[in-house]
Amino acid sequence: MTMAKLYCFGESGNAYKAALTLTLADMEWEPVFVDFFNGETRTPEFRALNPMGEVPVFTDGDLVLTQSGVIQDYVSSKTGKLGGRSAAERRDVLRWVFWDNHKLSSQAGMTRFLMNFLPEDKRPEGVIPFMHGRLKAAYTVLNDHLAGRNWMVGDQITIADTACCGYLYYPEPFGFARADWPHIDSWLDRISALPGWAHPYDMMPGNPSDRA
Amino acid sequence: MTMAKLYCFGESGNAYKAALTLTLADMEWEPVFVDFFNGETRTPEFRALNPMGEVPVFTDGDLVLTQSGVIQDYVSSKTGKLGGRSAAERRDVLRWVFWDNHKLSSQAGMTRFLMNFLPEDKRPEGVIPFMHGRLKAAYTVLNDHLAGRNWMVGDQITIADTACCGYLYYPEPFGFARADWPHIDSWLDRISALPGWAHPYDMMPGNPSDRA
Repeated sequence: MTMAKLYCFGESGNAYKAALTLTLADMEWEPVFVDFFNGETRTPEFRALNPMGEVPVFTDGDLVLTQSGVIQDYVSSKTGKLGGRSAAERRDVLRWVFWDNHKLSSQAGMTRFLMNFLPEDKRPEGVIPFMHGRLKAAYTVLNDHLAGRNWMVGDQITIADTACCGYLYYPEPFGFARADWPHIDSWLDRISALPGWAHPYDMMPGNPSDRA
Repeated sequence: MTMAKLYCFGESGNAYKAALTLTLADMEWEPVFVDFFNGETRTPEFRALNPMGEVPVFTDGDLVLTQSGVIQDYVSSKTGKLGGRSAAERRDVLRWVFWDNHKLSSQAGMTRFLMNFLPEDKRPEGVIPFMHGRLKAAYTVLNDHLAGRNWMVGDQITIADTACCGYLYYPEPFGFARADWPHIDSWLDRISALPGWAHPYDMMPGNPSDRA
């Protein structure tokens, strides 16, 4: 049987959500490096795989899935892990995965890209401070939610956690300092203490030092 | 039995996604007006209902759901409508709902807010043109996907359609002109020709003329 594959690169927090979910659900997978910084996601070959032009792309036999939330949902359903203990928990898990996509990762990923991976003279004026304001509102929601609880939903880790943490372990500056958000900080420590956890740059191929 | 309620206001495309889904799935519901423009989503009462501080909020008896994608998924599961015909279609439907939240509605909603509902002297410099660039990439993906097909997934309307169209019927300018995107244009015509369809300002309470 062919092993499940994740098309990814180290800098992608969206890919990391899928990679971390696969790993913590004990599903075997192998990474396929996508050379994003040399334009691979814009090639006709990659667009044939995913017309949205994004990583992650996940393949399991003939099945091809894109969008980190869909991959997370599939892995959780297939393995029976990380999905919550009841229908109510599962809806709440999905709620936080959507919130992350809508309010947290989409803004964090873009801001980190603008601040770190785009030449300084190409950074659009005014966008970064605006995004920092939006992100601060999202960190406040997340930090408040984590006050007095160990995991996003219920009493164990779910894909709500592996979604919301997607960009929060990266070292590059994007307007997030763990020390400012104590409940987020201790939750990130809980996730990174789990057996099998690895940093995105250790879990997926490619990182900024390759281009230094 | 208490009727299902949707906490919403006319200007919210995210609420419209839920309202349109409920309507096209033939589920009875009633709107509860949320006075967003006078700060209701920042009140302790509203935050108790939804700590994320957002509409839509949906209640069905004791069940409280937030995030449009979760409400859409619930309504589709409960009614057996708008969910796709197979497990593969359902995954593809979820994929487009996530894509919309991540790449289309989050940018369109914010850009429309900045351009129309924020006083001109408070608009952050540079953000609107930057967002127009991001949105153009999203419209291209959507328009290309709709070339040669009637619906986002399979051969009938699903919540992928009621998600992606969420902001596209609004009259206020936000960098989207239907004439530029012929496949999106004809798809919006197909949706608005369905029995029960109504414009967001006719389906939900509150619209800009209330504040004029």
